[in-house]
Amino acid sequence: MKKATFYHAGCPVCISAEQQFISAIDSNKYEVEVVHLGETSARISEAESLGVKSVPAMVVDGQPFHINFGASMEDVKG
Amino acid sequence: MKKATFYHAGCPVCISAEQQFISAIDSNKYEVEVVHLGETSARISEAESLGVKSVPAMVVDGQPFHINFGASMEDVKG
Repeated sequence: MKKATFYHAGCPVCISAEQQFISAIDSNKYEVEVVHLGETSARISEAESLGVKSVPAMVVDGQPFHINFGASMEDVKG
Repeated sequence: MKKATFYHAGCPVCISAEQQFISAIDSNKYEVEVVHLGETSARISEAESLGVKSVPAMVVDGQPFHINFGASMEDVKG
């Protein structure tokens, strides 16, 4: 099973869009994990090390894809 | 079958990333169409009407998601 990790920071405007996006991922091929960086700030450094520059972003097989623009990682760190 | 349309402009650096992204989409739920706007410029107005501001972008159920940043639609129009 490949891994896809969706990082976000709770942007209320984007939640429905994000859920729609995640529902399109093939769950037979990918295990999708959703990480709320506002609630689990301990994983911010993990996201940054994977190349995440802004949220929402999805890392598929270790490669970061930035989807639209909610907030920069600097904003997430507050 | 829902529809997902991936608009791009041939950015060679991004092709492999895009293919990886598309392969993650559940083909049992979504019919994925890939549109190269550099080759089929007649569909630029279609993309714009769906809210696409830059490429690569994927429109899922009529909602645009901009994935990373390759080029603005102004650049695509040349």
